Amino acid sequence: MEPVSSYRKVAEKPPRGARNRVRRHAERGRYDRTSVETILDSAFHGHLAFIEDGQPVAIPMLYVRDGEQLYLHGAPASRALKIVGSEVPLCFTVTLLDGLVLARAWFTHSVNYRSVAVFGVGRAVTGREEKLEAMRLLVDHIIPGRAEDSRWPSDKELRGTSIVAMSIDDASAKVRAGGPGDDEADYELPYWAGHLPLTMHAGAPIADARNLATVPSYVARLASNGEHSA
Amino acid sequence: MEPVSSYRKVAEKPPRGARNRVRRHAERGRYDRTSVETILDSAFHGHLAFIEDGQPVAIPMLYVRDGEQLYLHGAPASRALKIVGSEVPLCFTVTLLDGLVLARAWFTHSVNYRSVAVFGVGRAVTGREEKLEAMRLLVDHIIPGRAEDSRWPSDKELRGTSIVAMSIDDASAKVRAGGPGDDEADYELPYWAGHLPLTMHAGAPIADARNLATVPSYVARLASNGEHSA
Repeated sequence: MEPVSSYRKVAEKPPRGARNRVRRHAERGRYDRTSVETILDSAFHGHLAFIEDGQPVAIPMLYVRDGEQLYLHGAPASRALKIVGSEVPLCFTVTLLDGLVLARAWFTHSVNYRSVAVFGVGRAVTGREEKLEAMRLLVDHIIPGRAEDSRWPSDKELRGTSIVAMSIDDASAKVRAGGPGDDEADYELPYWAGHLPLTMHAGAPIADARNLATVPSYVARLASNGEHSA
Repeated sequence: MEPVSSYRKVAEKPPRGARNRVRRHAERGRYDRTSVETILDSAFHGHLAFIEDGQPVAIPMLYVRDGEQLYLHGAPASRALKIVGSEVPLCFTVTLLDGLVLARAWFTHSVNYRSVAVFGVGRAVTGREEKLEAMRLLVDHIIPGRAEDSRWPSDKELRGTSIVAMSIDDASAKVRAGGPGDDEADYELPYWAGHLPLTMHAGAPIADARNLATVPSYVARLASNGEHSA
């Protein structure tokens, strides 16, 4: 276990009522830094929840973790930016769906997943250097090796890009894995039970018609691996 | 286009400031019933945003659409149920990630996706018949054919299952598809550009050790198709 950091992703279960305490299936909750960060680093899109005129809104955004904060980017960044930046509470949730769990009873059906909910506050990234670095991290997080093999943004493009930095103040992970668990009496039922792994696959690259280059190795690798976290 | 229904998923763009109006990349916004329902019916999990003690929270939940409402189920249902049921505003967002878009410039990189944000209010499903029907719809939405090939819930299990019915009062869809669009000057750059399709694949079924049945055709079909929306 890593040392306790300035953010409160400690290994102990948060007190009852804490915003990051897992309520249902508490046995699936994890609060240690490694569990939280491993899941955050395995995905690249999540949903940002914020409040706008009393209305909760969840919007998909791309992200990358940089130490104890997340950089969020996406179409709604500019909308979110209007209401973040102060002490407005945010929640950013990432879910990787790993499988379908077919049990003998409807009630014991489930899904396998890895999920993290991050609680923190946001600020607009405005500094040129930080914004450039956040964009570079984001591009290379989604497609490793891509940042140096594409054009850096112009100053105008930088100004036209909205990025939210969100602190990881609290977080919790929740994980389910493996096959079904049925009531003992149900094992005599004639229904098939088991689980189906679900994975995100990258298909063959579709080249833009005006390409001057051949498919780079880092793209071919994504496609031949077949698997890409999302 | 289907006739305008009692809910306001009309083909016209909502007025400026409406909660379901797409702000950024407005050209990607769609408000007609068919677009919204096609996406909702293509996925089975999303993120519910609600407010708890002033804190916005987004939690992953499974769902199925039933006409002009969604049935939501998942570990947080009981938590969400504590705060829904009246006129508390909710937002449920579904995002299907379809691909990575590699453009010549960082700025023009993107992702392909289909997303829907639903705005409405929730109520706890308490009636025995409705809850049973919601569970049946959910099981068969995620694994078509499964409901009749597994055990129905007991009354105790029904009581132990939390389901939220959420009205679809407003909704908007947002879609991006296809390859990159670069600035004209960038087409002379030597960087490869194109897109990579991403699809969710179901792997080979992993049977529970105590199975009495062989893999049913509706499970084999999911796995052999390889593709399963999520």
